[in-house]
Amino acid sequence: MKIGFIGLGNMGGPIAANLIRAGHELAVWNRSPDKARALVEAGAHLAASPRETGAGRDLVFSMLADDAALDAVLAGPSGLIAGLRAGALHVSLSTIAVTTAERTAAVHAEHGQRFLCAPVFGRPEAAAAAKLYVVAAGDPADLEAARPALLALGQRVFVVGTAPSAACLVKLCGNFMILAAIESLAEAMALAEKGGIEPAQLLEVLTGTLFDSPIYRNYGRIMLEGRFRPAGFAAPLGLKDMRLVAQSAEALRVPMPVLGVLRDHLLQTVATLGPEADWSEIAATVARNAGLRR
Amino acid sequence: MKIGFIGLGNMGGPIAANLIRAGHELAVWNRSPDKARALVEAGAHLAASPRETGAGRDLVFSMLADDAALDAVLAGPSGLIAGLRAGALHVSLSTIAVTTAERTAAVHAEHGQRFLCAPVFGRPEAAAAAKLYVVAAGDPADLEAARPALLALGQRVFVVGTAPSAACLVKLCGNFMILAAIESLAEAMALAEKGGIEPAQLLEVLTGTLFDSPIYRNYGRIMLEGRFRPAGFAAPLGLKDMRLVAQSAEALRVPMPVLGVLRDHLLQTVATLGPEADWSEIAATVARNAGLRR
Amino acid sequence: MKIGFIGLGNMGGPIAANLIRAGHELAVWNRSPDKARALVEAGAHLAASPRETGAGRDLVFSMLADDAALDAVLAGPSGLIAGLRAGALHVSLSTIAVTTAERTAAVHAEHGQRFLCAPVFGRPEAAAAAKLYVVAAGDPADLEAARPALLALGQRVFVVGTAPSAACLVKLCGNFMILAAIESLAEAMALAEKGGIEPAQLLEVLTGTLFDSPIYRNYGRIMLEGRFRPAGFAAPLGLKDMRLVAQSAEALRVPMPVLGVLRDHLLQTVATLGPEADWSEIAATVARNAGLRR
Amino acid sequence: MKIGFIGLGNMGGPIAANLIRAGHELAVWNRSPDKARALVEAGAHLAASPRETGAGRDLVFSMLADDAALDAVLAGPSGLIAGLRAGALHVSLSTIAVTTAERTAAVHAEHGQRFLCAPVFGRPEAAAAAKLYVVAAGDPADLEAARPALLALGQRVFVVGTAPSAACLVKLCGNFMILAAIESLAEAMALAEKGGIEPAQLLEVLTGTLFDSPIYRNYGRIMLEGRFRPAGFAAPLGLKDMRLVAQSAEALRVPMPVLGVLRDHLLQTVATLGPEADWSEIAATVARNAGLRR
Repeated sequence: MKIGFIGLGNMGGPIAANLIRAGHELAVWNRSPDKARALVEAGAHLAASPRETGAGRDLVFSMLADDAALDAVLAGPSGLIAGLRAGALHVSLSTIAVTTAERTAAVHAEHGQRFLCAPVFGRPEAAAAAKLYVVAAGDPADLEAARPALLALGQRVFVVGTAPSAACLVKLCGNFMILAAIESLAEAMALAEKGGIEPAQLLEVLTGTLFDSPIYRNYGRIMLEGRFRPAGFAAPLGLKDMRLVAQSAEALRVPMPVLGVLRDHLLQTVATLGPEADWSEIAATVARNAGLRR
Repeated sequence: MKIGFIGLGNMGGPIAANLIRAGHELAVWNRSPDKARALVEAGAHLAASPRETGAGRDLVFSMLADDAALDAVLAGPSGLIAGLRAGALHVSLSTIAVTTAERTAAVHAEHGQRFLCAPVFGRPEAAAAAKLYVVAAGDPADLEAARPALLALGQRVFVVGTAPSAACLVKLCGNFMILAAIESLAEAMALAEKGGIEPAQLLEVLTGTLFDSPIYRNYGRIMLEGRFRPAGFAAPLGLKDMRLVAQSAEALRVPMPVLGVLRDHLLQTVATLGPEADWSEIAATVARNAGLRR
Repeated sequence: MKIGFIGLGNMGGPIAANLIRAGHELAVWNRSPDKARALVEAGAHLAASPRETGAGRDLVFSMLADDAALDAVLAGPSGLIAGLRAGALHVSLSTIAVTTAERTAAVHAEHGQRFLCAPVFGRPEAAAAAKLYVVAAGDPADLEAARPALLALGQRVFVVGTAPSAACLVKLCGNFMILAAIESLAEAMALAEKGGIEPAQLLEVLTGTLFDSPIYRNYGRIMLEGRFRPAGFAAPLGLKDMRLVAQSAEALRVPMPVLGVLRDHLLQTVATLGPEADWSEIAATVARNAGLRR
Repeated sequence: MKIGFIGLGNMGGPIAANLIRAGHELAVWNRSPDKARALVEAGAHLAASPRETGAGRDLVFSMLADDAALDAVLAGPSGLIAGLRAGALHVSLSTIAVTTAERTAAVHAEHGQRFLCAPVFGRPEAAAAAKLYVVAAGDPADLEAARPALLALGQRVFVVGTAPSAACLVKLCGNFMILAAIESLAEAMALAEKGGIEPAQLLEVLTGTLFDSPIYRNYGRIMLEGRFRPAGFAAPLGLKDMRLVAQSAEALRVPMPVLGVLRDHLLQTVATLGPEADWSEIAATVARNAGLRR
């Protein structure tokens, strides 16, 4: 399949590589082109603009840091909107706001183009191993068209609705729950540690009983070892996601008190440990607030 | 083994039945003796007091609603302390305060008696199926002595320390994390539902990816179906447990902001939905606060 | 002085009336022109557009519901920017975002126009009585020019900085503190009432001792009497202000846990009591969460 | 009047001195008797025990650090219960739990003795200046009897009910509101400071407008100057008071989310800044969480 790929950061890079490995023909673009080098060596064509990335392609993926980056890539004379032919499909893999998804869907529709949201769960390691989980929403025919490519980058595709923005809301719910699990585990571990329990022992009990799931095992190990850097998912990006959750919560009138705790701990983490912190480093903030130095 | 069993509520009853089934010889006692009928029919001896329940036994289990009930069972001329011979072992299966565990250990030690804490994870169904998880702490020799009986009531025994109170703290951490998972899931489901997502679809994505563990599957299903009653674990008991967590958090100087959210939602649940509510019914409170009527 | 006035809602209307009363010559504009009737009868000129409101005036006030309304009034061929001559002064009386203030200041500067922020504290009654408190920031010469007009609408003018946005941040801090005081008082009153204390008696003790200030006296009386409607300051507007506080808190990396409580209670209030609720009606939400029906 | 006084700490000491100054004849007792020296020099009789402090007195005041200290002073052969004659009156000035007040009232009643709660608002400086506010509750005749002595130690007496415990609940509500005001002000000041506003300027606006009350003026000045030590009211005592509020909130089923914030910040303050911190030093914690070092 002739695929365009925009955004080659620490998620987009390995995903694009998997698409090449699966036999797709790729045109790639990134704001700083040096990130494209390895992909070009693997056979990708380096496009000069988002517009050129979309030209003549049936399908273009985007994986960008935030909603503003998506807007910048879409608009203007060298933007993706200008490059895509009618009927071509844009699949956004990033976690974007529900309102951004709605606006982007409308703009593509005006130009006779098609649009899906298909944000993914997983950190860079999972992206490299093609083990991402894909949460997709949009027109069923478009989903069918995108499915082979989506299966080349992840282990399972969940379809959650016919409006593209539905996938964004589900993804935001998931990210909220991941961070909520990290926060709860961090509070419990700080309590146990100050009470003389080995944190590793607490974690063994939890993951050996009711919390036998990747989220607690993986982040639990990160906390035990204090191995937060280099960040797999930087705290400012986590903060951005939690802001998007809060925007939906405000628009939909849903009180979410745990969300407030998460945002405050992310803010404290960035304010005191710096913007290079991982989002799971809120666990270090929780421990420090209890007087533990780790 | 000749075993005494004190406290035959909706956890203690099925546990005692499993001990009989495993071939142990039981003396049982409950404040309201009618709860003992089925066990007596199954071969248990009905004791007239905690004291008599302990007389001549090597091992006595207690499974009581709260710390005050434990204190009442231990003290006085007809209490367990008066009945146990030197060297006999009392194993508390309830979730009690760390300070209560310390005090109880000290009282037994004064009388040459032995004491373990071995609180369990699992609801009444798990108790009936002998599928509980046991978190035990205390003297290694005592743990060895109790192990066969513990294995008759649960599927696995975790040993977390040599001070009995350590097991209480781990159990409290676990209960905190269960309720935190319920709260987070409830907030996410309220957001998704008001945003037009089918709650069942959200749950499928979550439990199919990073939250593939019993806690999310079981409580998620309860929430989907609104099947909170009859309570498996009543909200006032959940409130008691969260108070015990808070007592340890205060004594150990550990801020736990998610705990504050949980306590407030339990209080609101009991104040507005009544004391028969299940502790997971905080999910109904979360939904109602968002203007959803379920 | 020849003054323009844009935005004649339940704050802008009485303020404009006071300016007329103080002898100023007013041109007024409102999106729905019927709100201007009484002012026109009092001698104001009804302008056909924001542009015309600004034409030939030295000073134009705006008092608008939100940032989007301000943007709409400024831009385009019939907007205020197009109408103001170079050197003329725009004074925004609304509570707007820090970033909106910065952007507006920049746009005016591009056109050689001047800009002040001068948001006010006080409800419609205070506006009518010219008893508002004005918090102003901007260039000292501009502040001097605006001072006579500002003194016609309020009882005191505080100058808090030379960047117009500084006044917005101070105003947002103040609104946050007002709502925090309402929330705390509501929690205390719910506790006292359920504990058998007369709420009026609690309020008398508080305002007779350490809380002898208008905020507690006025809102305390509103709570005692349950007299929340018609809204003096609607809950959705309060929510908007708290969102602006949260935006600054996120941009400046300042955790504000009490802010999270306020936002959640506003959301619950709007979701369950409707958008006509007053922002202080979070006190009714607090009472209902405690099982009190008022 | 012949008065006994038990508890001569940094509140009790100056209060007792004022009673002597007002012409009352005092017998005093303190656990560490050196605290009594200045009072004895001023004419007080140093009693050997709480029992002796009460012997032959019409009225005995107690001002103790916590509920356990009160229990210790009352019970046993050398306790106050044993010393007071029937009909004599014990007035507790401390902030104690509602349940402690109920229990103490019952014990005195069993012995034909009378009991009032009359906790006070004010820090040691106010105690020395006889400017405390007294919140009293109990039998009207007892209140009449105690009034002259109460007026010698404070500037005003509020009567809030006929059950002594009512005064405790009102006092706890007041302490909660003081700390909530400190927290809100601290959050606003951190936001303003990081936004480039002079904290002193923010405080001038607030106390010059809607927050013109002692609580904001006094604590605002303490925050501006960072003058938290020596503690006027130590953080662990503040934590104790907030625990008593939480106990009443739990017993009465009243969710109080701001209370959760206050408790967590007190815990963090004690865990990271030490037990000598003042309770208002939660403001320093708020600032540090925002990355400000003061």
